[in-house]
Amino acid sequence: MKIGIDIMGGDYAPKAPLKGIANMLPSLPEDVELVLLGDQAVMDQYKSLLDPEHHDQVSFIPTTQVIEMGESPTKAFNNKPEASMAVGLNHLASSQFDVLISAGNTGALMVGSLYTVKPITGIIRPPLTTLVPKPDGNFGIILDVGANPDCKPEVLNQFGILGTMYLNSVYNIQNPRVGLLNIGTEPEKGNVNAQNTYRYITDHSNNEINFAGNVEGYDLFRDKAEVYVCDGFTGNIVLKSAEGIFELIKKRGITDEYFKHFDFENHGGTPILGINKPVIVGHGVSTPTAFENMVKQGQKVVKSNLVNHIKKAFET
Amino acid sequence: MKIGIDIMGGDYAPKAPLKGIANMLPSLPEDVELVLLGDQAVMDQYKSLLDPEHHDQVSFIPTTQVIEMGESPTKAFNNKPEASMAVGLNHLASSQFDVLISAGNTGALMVGSLYTVKPITGIIRPPLTTLVPKPDGNFGIILDVGANPDCKPEVLNQFGILGTMYLNSVYNIQNPRVGLLNIGTEPEKGNVNAQNTYRYITDHSNNEINFAGNVEGYDLFRDKAEVYVCDGFTGNIVLKSAEGIFELIKKRGITDEYFKHFDFENHGGTPILGINKPVIVGHGVSTPTAFENMVKQGQKVVKSNLVNHIKKAFET
Repeated sequence: MKIGIDIMGGDYAPKAPLKGIANMLPSLPEDVELVLLGDQAVMDQYKSLLDPEHHDQVSFIPTTQVIEMGESPTKAFNNKPEASMAVGLNHLASSQFDVLISAGNTGALMVGSLYTVKPITGIIRPPLTTLVPKPDGNFGIILDVGANPDCKPEVLNQFGILGTMYLNSVYNIQNPRVGLLNIGTEPEKGNVNAQNTYRYITDHSNNEINFAGNVEGYDLFRDKAEVYVCDGFTGNIVLKSAEGIFELIKKRGITDEYFKHFDFENHGGTPILGINKPVIVGHGVSTPTAFENMVKQGQKVVKSNLVNHIKKAFET
Repeated sequence: MKIGIDIMGGDYAPKAPLKGIANMLPSLPEDVELVLLGDQAVMDQYKSLLDPEHHDQVSFIPTTQVIEMGESPTKAFNNKPEASMAVGLNHLASSQFDVLISAGNTGALMVGSLYTVKPITGIIRPPLTTLVPKPDGNFGIILDVGANPDCKPEVLNQFGILGTMYLNSVYNIQNPRVGLLNIGTEPEKGNVNAQNTYRYITDHSNNEINFAGNVEGYDLFRDKAEVYVCDGFTGNIVLKSAEGIFELIKKRGITDEYFKHFDFENHGGTPILGINKPVIVGHGVSTPTAFENMVKQGQKVVKSNLVNHIKKAFET
């Protein structure tokens, strides 16, 4: 398995990804090869730090441009074809990698993935996702969390299917319940789009998903559903407000076993769902541990064969 | 000052409001009179518990119907003209009370307020609000949190003005910053409605508000703005997901000075902004302490003359 890693992406790049890679090498499965994309100078420096025992599991592709965190996604991707992220996506698209990992500019990574790796035929809008730890130790998933600020009912219905397939393939959660994030549980609740979506999913689900109806904000942390479907506007604001609270929990020195699971470091990143190859999106503030876990997540996603399952489900 | 209290509203009614009233009586200012609305039998029982010293500060209006928590708001309000909530709103509309307090069915309280007390001329859609405690001890306000799931830019602009006036009049926060809740800080970020709203507010604010531009989910708990403007769909989901997290914080026995402030009990309730008389909306799960604080909030709102300030601002 070949894993491409954009070592120039993220607020703490290239230090954080390189440290993460050094840490993970001793326990890296023998059949996994890491291909690092980034500046020649950075890589030369890194080579000297690398344990020679693992030299054969790491290779380098020098790149000459970097997409910065604050750049306009479309412009950045168009103007910087030699950026680590762009070169990585091209290698992924041409099957030279099995998966690409990046904690760089999320918008650019999304735009670039749509241009190069392309959506699976039948998928209208690939979503970004985040995992929500459940008090019972399981995981839920929220989608979309920012890629698609406005989503029609048929798009939200697809999110339900994609989330179901992800939890099923990667986390072995069978028949997860799909909840439509809303402001009340009755079918007629919500804004116009949520009302239409409730009807659309009820009419079209065809047993592809286990629709649990409308769920409310507090149900994200209760045993009401595993897949939480919403537009990227709502999902992004909910995700970031939760992050704001966890930031405070950390800052105030509160240590708690359950809330530890909320640290994005623990899973590192999640795949963009519904594109032709797996791209693992990391958080901008990714630490070495986050990169380690992103590489693990990448292996899981490749082994699960998730992309092919989705292709099969949408090919008709 | 006459404060009407719906003692039949809330999950723990009538026990919780009556216990709250018994607790608050000893320290109730002499110029405040409480008028309780509810079943005759409940009130007879209560009278016997009431400290005779304060009998002159409490009176009763017997009512014969109750709007239940799960009822359809419009139907409930139309079919139950003798409900404690409806009778209370009519007394408020005809100036027999200075403020009405209820922890009953929020939808019905909203619908009833719009029918009887009516929006202030010029206000398109009165919002529901919630207070957000800031780490520095101050308060922010989010509006709308559920009354208006779809909001046009001019409605969101009015929320900015209403939130500013509320923080100004009731909490003496001068020139609060108004942030548009969004998924990025750049003006072009967000769904179509948020993009239009950013432009609308920039074009129309006329120095009535101190517009701080777009703010993100985590900014709710940071020093970025005091007034957070969003549609009631987004606001309700954000509020309830935060409630879900605080529920877990409590459940897991975490005690922390700052997070204590998140307990809605501490302020009890908030007024519906932009209607002709103050109605204080409590949380369905209001406890005696919450009722005590709702009555305090009611006094604050009346003394601040908030409603007249809003009337004056919108009368042109």
